[in-house]
Amino acid sequence: MNIGIIGYGYWGPNLVRNFSSLQNCKVSSIAEANISRHELILKHYKDVKIYHSAEELIKDISIDAVVIATPVFSHYPLAKLALENGKHVLIEKPMTSSSAHAKELIEIALRKNLSLMVDHTFLYTGAVQKMKELVSSGFLGKLSYIDSTRINLGLFQSDVNVLWDLAPHDISILNYLVDERPISVNATGVSHTNNEIENIAYLTLNYNSGFIAHFNCSWSSPVKLRMMLIGGMDKMCIFNDLEPTEKVKIYDTGYSYKTDEEKNRIMVDYRAGDIYLPKVNSTEALSLVAKDFIESIDNKTNPKSDANIGLDVVKILEAAQKSIKMKGQEIKIEK
Amino acid sequence: MNIGIIGYGYWGPNLVRNFSSLQNCKVSSIAEANISRHELILKHYKDVKIYHSAEELIKDISIDAVVIATPVFSHYPLAKLALENGKHVLIEKPMTSSSAHAKELIEIALRKNLSLMVDHTFLYTGAVQKMKELVSSGFLGKLSYIDSTRINLGLFQSDVNVLWDLAPHDISILNYLVDERPISVNATGVSHTNNEIENIAYLTLNYNSGFIAHFNCSWSSPVKLRMMLIGGMDKMCIFNDLEPTEKVKIYDTGYSYKTDEEKNRIMVDYRAGDIYLPKVNSTEALSLVAKDFIESIDNKTNPKSDANIGLDVVKILEAAQKSIKMKGQEIKIEK
Amino acid sequence: MNIGIIGYGYWGPNLVRNFSSLQNCKVSSIAEANISRHELILKHYKDVKIYHSAEELIKDISIDAVVIATPVFSHYPLAKLALENGKHVLIEKPMTSSSAHAKELIEIALRKNLSLMVDHTFLYTGAVQKMKELVSSGFLGKLSYIDSTRINLGLFQSDVNVLWDLAPHDISILNYLVDERPISVNATGVSHTNNEIENIAYLTLNYNSGFIAHFNCSWSSPVKLRMMLIGGMDKMCIFNDLEPTEKVKIYDTGYSYKTDEEKNRIMVDYRAGDIYLPKVNSTEALSLVAKDFIESIDNKTNPKSDANIGLDVVKILEAAQKSIKMKGQEIKIEK
Amino acid sequence: MNIGIIGYGYWGPNLVRNFSSLQNCKVSSIAEANISRHELILKHYKDVKIYHSAEELIKDISIDAVVIATPVFSHYPLAKLALENGKHVLIEKPMTSSSAHAKELIEIALRKNLSLMVDHTFLYTGAVQKMKELVSSGFLGKLSYIDSTRINLGLFQSDVNVLWDLAPHDISILNYLVDERPISVNATGVSHTNNEIENIAYLTLNYNSGFIAHFNCSWSSPVKLRMMLIGGMDKMCIFNDLEPTEKVKIYDTGYSYKTDEEKNRIMVDYRAGDIYLPKVNSTEALSLVAKDFIESIDNKTNPKSDANIGLDVVKILEAAQKSIKMKGQEIKIEK
Repeated sequence: MNIGIIGYGYWGPNLVRNFSSLQNCKVSSIAEANISRHELILKHYKDVKIYHSAEELIKDISIDAVVIATPVFSHYPLAKLALENGKHVLIEKPMTSSSAHAKELIEIALRKNLSLMVDHTFLYTGAVQKMKELVSSGFLGKLSYIDSTRINLGLFQSDVNVLWDLAPHDISILNYLVDERPISVNATGVSHTNNEIENIAYLTLNYNSGFIAHFNCSWSSPVKLRMMLIGGMDKMCIFNDLEPTEKVKIYDTGYSYKTDEEKNRIMVDYRAGDIYLPKVNSTEALSLVAKDFIESIDNKTNPKSDANIGLDVVKILEAAQKSIKMKGQEIKIEK
Repeated sequence: MNIGIIGYGYWGPNLVRNFSSLQNCKVSSIAEANISRHELILKHYKDVKIYHSAEELIKDISIDAVVIATPVFSHYPLAKLALENGKHVLIEKPMTSSSAHAKELIEIALRKNLSLMVDHTFLYTGAVQKMKELVSSGFLGKLSYIDSTRINLGLFQSDVNVLWDLAPHDISILNYLVDERPISVNATGVSHTNNEIENIAYLTLNYNSGFIAHFNCSWSSPVKLRMMLIGGMDKMCIFNDLEPTEKVKIYDTGYSYKTDEEKNRIMVDYRAGDIYLPKVNSTEALSLVAKDFIESIDNKTNPKSDANIGLDVVKILEAAQKSIKMKGQEIKIEK
Repeated sequence: MNIGIIGYGYWGPNLVRNFSSLQNCKVSSIAEANISRHELILKHYKDVKIYHSAEELIKDISIDAVVIATPVFSHYPLAKLALENGKHVLIEKPMTSSSAHAKELIEIALRKNLSLMVDHTFLYTGAVQKMKELVSSGFLGKLSYIDSTRINLGLFQSDVNVLWDLAPHDISILNYLVDERPISVNATGVSHTNNEIENIAYLTLNYNSGFIAHFNCSWSSPVKLRMMLIGGMDKMCIFNDLEPTEKVKIYDTGYSYKTDEEKNRIMVDYRAGDIYLPKVNSTEALSLVAKDFIESIDNKTNPKSDANIGLDVVKILEAAQKSIKMKGQEIKIEK
Repeated sequence: MNIGIIGYGYWGPNLVRNFSSLQNCKVSSIAEANISRHELILKHYKDVKIYHSAEELIKDISIDAVVIATPVFSHYPLAKLALENGKHVLIEKPMTSSSAHAKELIEIALRKNLSLMVDHTFLYTGAVQKMKELVSSGFLGKLSYIDSTRINLGLFQSDVNVLWDLAPHDISILNYLVDERPISVNATGVSHTNNEIENIAYLTLNYNSGFIAHFNCSWSSPVKLRMMLIGGMDKMCIFNDLEPTEKVKIYDTGYSYKTDEEKNRIMVDYRAGDIYLPKVNSTEALSLVAKDFIESIDNKTNPKSDANIGLDVVKILEAAQKSIKMKGQEIKIEK
């Protein structure tokens, strides 16, 4: 199988390296408009064909599948062209800049019986796999909240705000761990660069069941934090992605409540017990993304990070964007 | 000067201990309805007079000033009665459960020329004093945001939600450090105890200048965190109250931006430099609260944590409460 | 039972408080030479009798047992006098400044059928109890080493060096966890105060079985560290006493080796797995020390921290002292 | 200038990469006995000549300088052969397995006017450079001790013990920061692999001036620690190499003492003040090693990590080895 990679910027080299190391496929072509990057490609990959434009690569009939690692606004037109030319498509996150576009891509892929997948890499990490296991097996009990902080200094983007840049990670993990989908979103934020592109943003996701999720995203923090709290009624869990090995920490901590009928108030009991840090798989997640994409083509299987996960992420981002511009008002998320 | 303390529950003993150790005043009476606590009082303070009801204590003409450390709903009636009986008053935070009540108390105190102060203890800590100095001197540059996380397991309250319980600390620090006042608030949250009392809540404060503040409050976290980020345009600062000695950490970190006219986009430069942890005063803050209260009476001075700070905190809490109940809608804060 | 406490300096107040809260005994007398401390005693304990000299207290026939919390050099004469006067004795650590003295005390106590115990408080902490359980049950496997770092700034002592001040904690824990006793010791150190009292010292304990222990003690560190590593052949454990709750951390980590006969060398395999932090009991250890002492008197039982533990600690300190003065030479420890 | 690299095992690839990226030299040849590594070399470096034996490479007359990255025992014969063949030589640390060998190499290099350097990479790190600056400028005051902990799980070596493996880092930093040289050493340790190769070892270095250094080295720790404390009489410093950015932490902490003539004892005062974390250069140290080596050849300059530093490290290791085998006895270090 011949793979064409579009975009050899920040993430492209990682994609090329991982697809190159797979047995049953070959990175035959790379498209990159920035000519100064071509030498770098050739230094590492002598036999790859280099295209100056994505469109040329897409029209190369020897290519079976394309991977799109370009700025967000170009995801939709490139993916559409690729699908229409019969290529399987893997798109970098976020899938598109509008849910209408994402839905259209899903329809085309379905009609043409092609694989369409989004690179939500986090879903393939050992830590998220472990958390999925903890949630699915009921070890944590019924989930009551997820609260994530993803802050650092920069990189300020010039086309998308901090939510579109950082929150796709959190939203994809959330949607992977929790089956229920949010009904609405509230978001607030601020742009300190005078260009309506928020560098700090806060997102609350509301659910029918009483579950709640909140994400704190910033490009303006003096420190880098990557911390997700997952509250279950039996146990709680913290995912700290900056820990080299101790990424997932499970607390046998919780509370239960009963109503004191006499005084007509709630009595809450607390419990704090042992802590457990399971060893998590440290296989490079992107290699598993590449493998899952190839398998989805070969075996017509559904990848973990399928287009529906991608669409659901875009729906939430779209609603959040709207909420920020409407001063935090609750925005319903389209089902 | 004779001090009467109302309420010998969680915080009361600390108040009694600190006022007792001052030279120029005496804790002459304590009111506590729970008789099982009386023995404890007598064990430590042989000569104190114990009242079963707050009203009795307030009417004791030998008492010059009262300290109110009772549940929030009772702050207003007790403080009002005390002021009307000519006593100076120190109230636990939050001052009252409505801003109308707070304003009424301020008016009475003014009319009767009595001291009225709120115990926002944090303003008297060495860490907050150091941060005030950093902000006032311009060392951090123009402030752009404050972001605080104050989460732990419990104690679930049965009368007020997590915002009224925990956010007064953050709001009072914010209002102490920043002269500008927020114009509006958005808040979201959830009650997991089926009683409309939120145990998790998120608060965004919006400002005319583009400054933003956000507070994350929870009674449902497996870990205790007390971390406030203060972003200045020249330097940034982290206040971690759980560090025994390294509470304030200043980062010579920042970013600047300019508009790339040609490409019509923002170019941002980052800078990360030295880090500096000033030693902070470790005097018990509550002893300084007590001292400031007595001085405000003796010298007719304005205490750091005066009734207007208390009122401003209540205004924000009130608006936040309304916003939560109106699904995160922006609520203007009364000037 | 009437208890007399000798010495109301740094640790004395804790002893008085803990013995006072026991049901079946009473702190009837306190001896303290420093008259300026008497007022403090009376403030908290109205009914206690205060002696100016230890000898007077010891001769008070109404007293059944004495607790000695004075400088090390006075432990032996006071304990001897007390035993000879028929009192049960609890001595602060280290038991005495020479093993000959410790042995003499043990003999007297045996002869007079009196309880003699040393306050190695750490043995009564939840963390050490948990580690004892881990070692005794074989959960960690055969132990191969203990390595402890106990460093901070000050308090420089003027009569004993840093080993006599800090190492008793480590040695008592070591001897409590490990049944085998060291055969010899090497110690090095330095005095930066020109008075032959070492403020930094390092201690290696050698064992017949190949087990090894090492302690790093310092009064001259910019940071406080309290960290003990316990290496077992199946699992390893870290005891970090500065962690408020996560004191004991068990690593499913280890190595195994086999001889590669062909190449005549050792092949080592590593394993790093899950980590587990058991909840440990947080009862104040000193209250359990007091209880154990009283029980040892009432029921003629052997306390956890008996005089033999105390003697073994002194033997090691004595040998270590000798080794430092003999430039690190190996000094055999008397059996 | 043509460089030949001998050994393409663990460290060799880093050397090749760094020398390759320099402007004024070329990695023309690599010698590697393990044929299975040749393919890897060719994948990254198409034009390099591969030798099966080090001797062949050394005899290649087109090569100007060789870098020796082989097991310790082979450093001496290979370096000697290279020097005798007129090559400049950079040797991996430790320089040789005996000080006699190291001295012989220094003599040959001197006689033949060739550069001879040892790769003590740490001396070129931003952190060590910063500490050198702090020491040289007198900012820390007179140094009183260095105490380093360098422990982790594995890698057990089959030819050298943990001291020869890990302590060269600490000793080279020590000798770089401190001009005075130790007069003697005490070392203790244990082998848990039944082959007389210690996997845990402790080293004390004694100095005439009263300065002291201690190193704790282990292959058997459940956690990785890299922490060096540097005590000065004015300030203290901690070098934590595992911190991604906050590697050097300076404490305005100290103590001073005076003699209380009356009581004939020492009175010590403590001081703990601000903490300061200077930003340190993050340039890859090995690139600076390579540059320094080339410059030493081109300009006949003395590199930072010259052969005398290398010799001094070997002298200490040799004495330490002897001390361990003589049960910790003090071993004088040859001047």
